[in-house]
Formats: sequence, C-alpha cells, structure tokens
Amino acid sequence: MERIKPRTLSGFMELLPAKQQQFEKMAQILRDTYSLYGFAPLDTPVIEDAQILLAKGSGETEKQIYRFQKGDSDLALRFDLTVPLAKYVALHYNDLAFPFRRFQISKVYRGERAQRGRFREFYQADIDIIGDGKLDILNEAEIPSIIYKVFRGFGLTRFQIRVNNRKILNGFYAMLGLSEKSGEIMRTVDKLDKIGAEKVSTILVEDCALTQEQAQEILKFIAITGSNEQVIAALEGYTGRNEVFDLGLAELKAVTANLAAFGVPEANFAVDLTIARGLDYYTGTVYETTLLDHPEIGSVCSGGRYDDLAGYYIDKPLPGVGISIGLTRLFYVLEEQGLLNPELPTAPADALVLPMTTDAAPSIALAEALRAEGLRVQLYCEQKKFKQKMSYADKLGVPFAVLLGEDEIAQGKCSVKNMRTGEQAVMTAQEAAAHIRQSLNSVSGAVILEK
Amino acid sequence: MERIKPRTLSGFMELLPAKQQQFEKMAQILRDTYSLYGFAPLDTPVIEDAQILLAKGSGETEKQIYRFQKGDSDLALRFDLTVPLAKYVALHYNDLAFPFRRFQISKVYRGERAQRGRFREFYQADIDIIGDGKLDILNEAEIPSIIYKVFRGFGLTRFQIRVNNRKILNGFYAMLGLSEKSGEIMRTVDKLDKIGAEKVSTILVEDCALTQEQAQEILKFIAITGSNEQVIAALEGYTGRNEVFDLGLAELKAVTANLAAFGVPEANFAVDLTIARGLDYYTGTVYETTLLDHPEIGSVCSGGRYDDLAGYYIDKPLPGVGISIGLTRLFYVLEEQGLLNPELPTAPADALVLPMTTDAAPSIALAEALRAEGLRVQLYCEQKKFKQKMSYADKLGVPFAVLLGEDEIAQGKCSVKNMRTGEQAVMTAQEAAAHIRQSLNSVSGAVILEK
Repeated sequence: MERIKPRTLSGFMELLPAKQQQFEKMAQILRDTYSLYGFAPLDTPVIEDAQILLAKGSGETEKQIYRFQKGDSDLALRFDLTVPLAKYVALHYNDLAFPFRRFQISKVYRGERAQRGRFREFYQADIDIIGDGKLDILNEAEIPSIIYKVFRGFGLTRFQIRVNNRKILNGFYAMLGLSEKSGEIMRTVDKLDKIGAEKVSTILVEDCALTQEQAQEILKFIAITGSNEQVIAALEGYTGRNEVFDLGLAELKAVTANLAAFGVPEANFAVDLTIARGLDYYTGTVYETTLLDHPEIGSVCSGGRYDDLAGYYIDKPLPGVGISIGLTRLFYVLEEQGLLNPELPTAPADALVLPMTTDAAPSIALAEALRAEGLRVQLYCEQKKFKQKMSYADKLGVPFAVLLGEDEIAQGKCSVKNMRTGEQAVMTAQEAAAHIRQSLNSVSGAVILEK
Repeated sequence: MERIKPRTLSGFMELLPAKQQQFEKMAQILRDTYSLYGFAPLDTPVIEDAQILLAKGSGETEKQIYRFQKGDSDLALRFDLTVPLAKYVALHYNDLAFPFRRFQISKVYRGERAQRGRFREFYQADIDIIGDGKLDILNEAEIPSIIYKVFRGFGLTRFQIRVNNRKILNGFYAMLGLSEKSGEIMRTVDKLDKIGAEKVSTILVEDCALTQEQAQEILKFIAITGSNEQVIAALEGYTGRNEVFDLGLAELKAVTANLAAFGVPEANFAVDLTIARGLDYYTGTVYETTLLDHPEIGSVCSGGRYDDLAGYYIDKPLPGVGISIGLTRLFYVLEEQGLLNPELPTAPADALVLPMTTDAAPSIALAEALRAEGLRVQLYCEQKKFKQKMSYADKLGVPFAVLLGEDEIAQGKCSVKNMRTGEQAVMTAQEAAAHIRQSLNSVSGAVILEK
C-alpha cells in the first residue's frame, strides 16, 4: 500500500493526551467561572457567509482570513468570536433578553505567517454583556471580578488587572487640541511597555507631528501612577476642562468604587493610564491583565466597553462590554515555561482494573462497581503477562491499579495498588472506591504554578 | 451606514440560549460517561492537509468535502473524526500507550445538499479503542455497556442496542459461494428495515445476480430472531462449514456472555443478523442503537470493529473498535419531536440579584456570597423600574429573583422570590443559598422524555 506521511499542519495545536487533560482543566475553569456569573454558553458556526463576516473588514483581516467558495457560496472561517456574536445578536434580536450575557470558548482561524508560538487555529474564551440601547457602568465594574475569579481559579495570585478609560484619554487629547490624532497617539502610547518612553516621544513628534510640549504633556499624563486613590486624585486635577474627560473619570471612579464588594483585592488591580487597546471600537473602560512574574507574555486577558456591537447588521444601538482570553496561546506559553502543574493527575482514568483470571466477569463487575461510585475506571481487556499489564498502567500514568485474581475473588475483595508509592492493600470494592477517592482528593493544587 | 442582512448559513445549527443549554447537557452526559470508562479527551484540528484527509477518499467523500487553497497549501475541513484519529495515532504512535482509548466530541463538515434536518456542520461524539497489533474481543464486549450508560444517562429506557458480527455474515456468504458479492449483498440486506424483505430479495436476484435459492437462504438466515440464546442456538446449526463463520460466532458469544456483568439488561440488547453497517472497513462486531418508540429516527449510535485504522499512514496493524453518535442530528430530531424535557432549567443563572438601592455595594456582596455557595448568579446592573426588572427575570427564565432593598439591608437579609410559584420570603444570604440549592435539586429529571 502506498503510504502518506502523517502530519498536522503547522500553526495548529494538537496535544498528546496528558497535555490535553491539562488544557481541558483550564477550559473547564473558564466555563465554570463564566457560568457562575450568569453567562449563557453559545456555539456559533465556524463557517459564515464571507460578506457577513467581513462587513466591517479591514485589509489586514482580509489577508489573514480563510475564505473559499463552495458551489455558489462565498464562505469564510470566523477569525474572532465578536463578529459572529454581532451577527447572532442582530439575527436573534427579538428572541433575546437584554442585557444579553454570553460566553463562548471556541476555535477561531487566522492564516498568519507560520511562526513559533503563533497559531492559525486557536481557542478564544470570550464573555460579553450586550445592552439594548443602554448598558449601565456597573457592568464594566463587574468585569474585573470575573477576570479575578478566572485567574484565581487557575491558581494564580501574582497577576494584575489593569484598567483605563478611553473617555479619559480622548478627553485629555481634546484638551491638547489633538482629538483628530488621538487614535494614532493611543496606538503609539500602547507600545510604551515594549519600546519605552523615549521612543514613544520620538514617534509622537516625528511620525504624529506633535510639538515637543504636547509629547511631554502626554508622557507626563501617562506617567501618573500609584494606588487607585492617588491616580484618581491626580486625574481630578484635569477636571472641568473637557466633558468627555469628566465623564470618563466618573466612570473610572464607578469601576473602582465597588472593587471591595466584588472581592477584588487592591493588589490585583491597577488604574493604568498607558492602556488604550489598539482597537478603535472601544469607547469606555478598557482592560488588560498581566502575570506579574511574566510580563514578557503580555496581556493574557483583554477587552473593554464598546458602543456599537452590530451596527453593520441592525438599526439598533447595542452597547456592550467584553473580554477575551487567548486560551491556546496562554496554554502554549505556560507549557513552554514549565508553569503547568505536573502534580495534577492527567491520566484518562483514576484506576485501571487488571483481570488476573480467565473469566473476565468478576473484573467487569468490579469495574462497574467502582464506576458506580463515580470513579473513572478503565478495564484492561488484553491477555498479556503481568509485567506488561503493569507497564501499561505505568505508561498510562493511572494513579491506581486494581488487581483481581482467584484469591481476591474468593475473599470478595480486590488488591489496590498505589502506582506512585507502590503500596498495595486488599479491600472490598466499596473500600477501594473510598480509598482511591480519598487519595485523589488529597492531590489538590493549582493548574498553573507560580515561580 | 449601509447594512448587511444578518443570516446563518443553511445547514448550520445555531441555537437560542435555552436550547443551547439543553444541547450542552447532552454533550456533558456524553463527556462524563465516556470519561467514566477511561477514554481520554482529544481535540484535533478542524483543518487538515487535504492529501492526508483524503488518503482513503472515495468520489462521494470528495464531492462533499470543504476543500480550499490557502497560499500554496491544499486544505480541507475534517468530514469525520475517524480519519483525523488515524492520522493522530500514526503521527504520535511512539508517544501513546496501547490500547489507546480516546473520545472526541467535535464538529465535522460535509457540504451536503441543503435539506431539512441535514447538517453541513454537525457534532459527532465518538469513542474508539485502538490496539497495537492485537485487540482483545473483550473490548468489543464492553462497548454495549458504554452505549447503555449513555442512553440511560439521557434518561431513556426504551432503546435497544443491536449487535451483529461481520465474520458471521462473511462466513455465511462464503458457505453459499457468494464471498465476492458479500459487500454488495450486505449493503442490500442493510436496507431490510427500510424497504422490506420482498424488495431485498428482488434486488439480490436482479441486481446482484443471485439465484432464487441463494436469495431465499439469505432471507431465511437474516430472519433468525429471538432471545440471544435462541439466535445463538440457531447459528450453532451452521457451524463446522466455514472457519470465518465459526470465529464470528465465537466472538458473538464472547460479546453476549458478559452482558450481565457489564450491567446491560437483556431488554436493551439484541443480536440482529440484519445489521451489517454499510462501511466495508468493519471486520467483526457491529453495533446499531434504536429508540424503540421512534424507529423512524434510525440508528442513533453506530459503530463496530475494524482491523486497519491507519494503514494509509503507518506500517503497523492497528485494529480498533469504536462508536459514533451524530449529536447534532439526534438533538435536532428530539427537539422536532418535542422529546426534550422542558422541565429542566435552561436559564443562564440560578438566581438574579436585583438591587433596589442606589448603592450597589450590598447587592454586589450578596451576589458574591451566593456564588461562593456554588450558585450561578447574575447581578442585574441596569437602573430600571421594578416592573421592568421582574419582566427581565421572567424573560430570562431564572428560577429565583433575589431582591435587596433598604429594609432587607437593615435586617442583614434579602427577599427570595420563587419565579415559578411566586412565593417570596425574607432570609439571610446563607439561608437563601440553601433554599435555592434545595429547590434546584428537587427538579430532577431526564434530558430526553419517553412518550
């Protein structure tokens, strides 16, 4: 037979079983946390009509998109979860209750240049809250508490949710008479972390044609740091000069006011005036989240407030606020840096039942009894030598092997072997289930390590 | 602004939030049950190299496939989960422990003619057990117990797992000197349920060029019915004439021998000699599952034993056994027929916290307290009138609204309103959590109704 060499396309993550279990754990924490805040799970098609997907499209998006014909249809794979959400909300507007809260953890597709750590197929884990006409600032205030719960759920403490408000930035640029350049300026300021203040200043003067004074004003402004109160106090000094600025400051105060009630410690939150988010559609609060010991990863959870979700599809003002976690990239980086906790079980089963008799019936019944107690149990079905059976248990990484030979059957018991310690004891099926359960419960720990 | 009419492509299922929750419940039951039997979750790319995906390809597959160019790459979307599994096992052969058990619940793509109830994007929920060189018959015997657990998990009792063995059929056809026509004959016999015995006979004689006697022998053979013992007793009458037949009968006996130990009642299992499965690659046990009160749906879970999973990619014999559930189609049919239990909660939250004061802090803290007890809680953030708030709670379908006004705050309590009964009571946050939890636990019931 002529054979084709198997391969997986570059830029597509395909994990071995143990790694996949770690990935699933992270996805489960996201699902659970998003659900805890009343977000409904959503699942939209991977393929959409290309005209609809690209309604808003820019040249950059078009280049990356997977677009193709099928029959007469012009089709494309979704490149994010926001455009499909906009379509969904516009299409089902009459059937939804607003504010509409949904989460979606799904794959998106971008045909980027192949590069280590860049993915062409990757998971995004998004939440959005969409209002019908209006959406209260309290929604923007709630988002940091959800981000906080997610990263605490992953087991982290050393992370910071950074918040800014686009109205503050827009208002400030208006004071300097730089409104028309504000987009350009924000995109430049956004690079501060990467290129430093001096280069930002140079670009502002040379590329954006600002005066030295204007550039200095901007750098002075974004250099405002300190506790939430200190930053807000400093910002109070700019009030009364621009309405948009004042509104933005009021919003920022509303977002920071209830942090304690939301259970977000000050240590995990900072007002950061350098954050603008590159995208032009954000209009209010913007969020970024960084791992304090790994700033090189960049923001692991970003988003913000926008005023017009679906104007391309429906004649209704639909403001919203949302965040997105690039789950595939986050997982990749954590794995590369050895930050995934290797202590957590990744085996497909809690126990492997090994029949030691020709008649499999007692082992089958034992496996069923252990499953009835909620354990994930694999019945080993092959007729191999004892050594090969144990070697399989080892390779699979199961925490327990449960052996059933003539002696155990005669006693109505089974032998339970802890694969890590090597300890082995004879007990009933019920005792075995309790023993294994107890041992599994004792292995608790974070999915992500801090080091 | 010029608007584009939003739409979802025909043949692509996109559910409203309540329906999506029902779908998620079914998917969760599948994940949990598959995990209980030691299957590892797997996630392979949606896009694969077209050459690899079509290594085995037939004309029919090629016509349906979504295939396109991106740059120099010839790409295609997976049309099932078996070919990607074959690629995965061949590619990662050295890193896997065999038998390798995996489940995958993922979308696949087939550009079929648009038709009501036919989907171009749909979920398959597959399990497979892959052996390295050999795979014991006990694996085939275990499969019905997993199917049984899945459909019991859905809440069903009136279903039947039908089992046959291709070796019995092949051996029988060899006895009649019809080996070369066995594929053709089986595809015809497979239609028995749909077209009846007479038409099958006509096709066998006219199209397959069998003699009347041969056709009668075949119809007599596949008419063997009764309890497992009766069918097996009848089959014993054919032994000693063909080795393959005898081997198949021995396998069938091994599969039926341990049903009781596996916990599968006789009522949910039947040996059915008419089942062949259309696909040529099955070589041993084959499975179909029907809902007894809804035979018109056809098989809802099918599969079988095969001897060569990945011969197109690797020079290793990799036998396996697997089953597949067409989840999207099953969900669609159940929904169409009104068989999804409407009593189960489908709201995105267990409780909606409604602040009745200007200061949101007490309501935020209350919502957090309820979440800490594991409840899914949405904080209502909009400043609306009471009536509008209650109308939102209604539309969302939340089972409980939790109201917090000045009076409740003064007492350190909250008002809990059961949205179904209208009952309302004042209690502490802890009492509220217990009250809501108890009420939710009392609503138990199957996902699928039998009627």
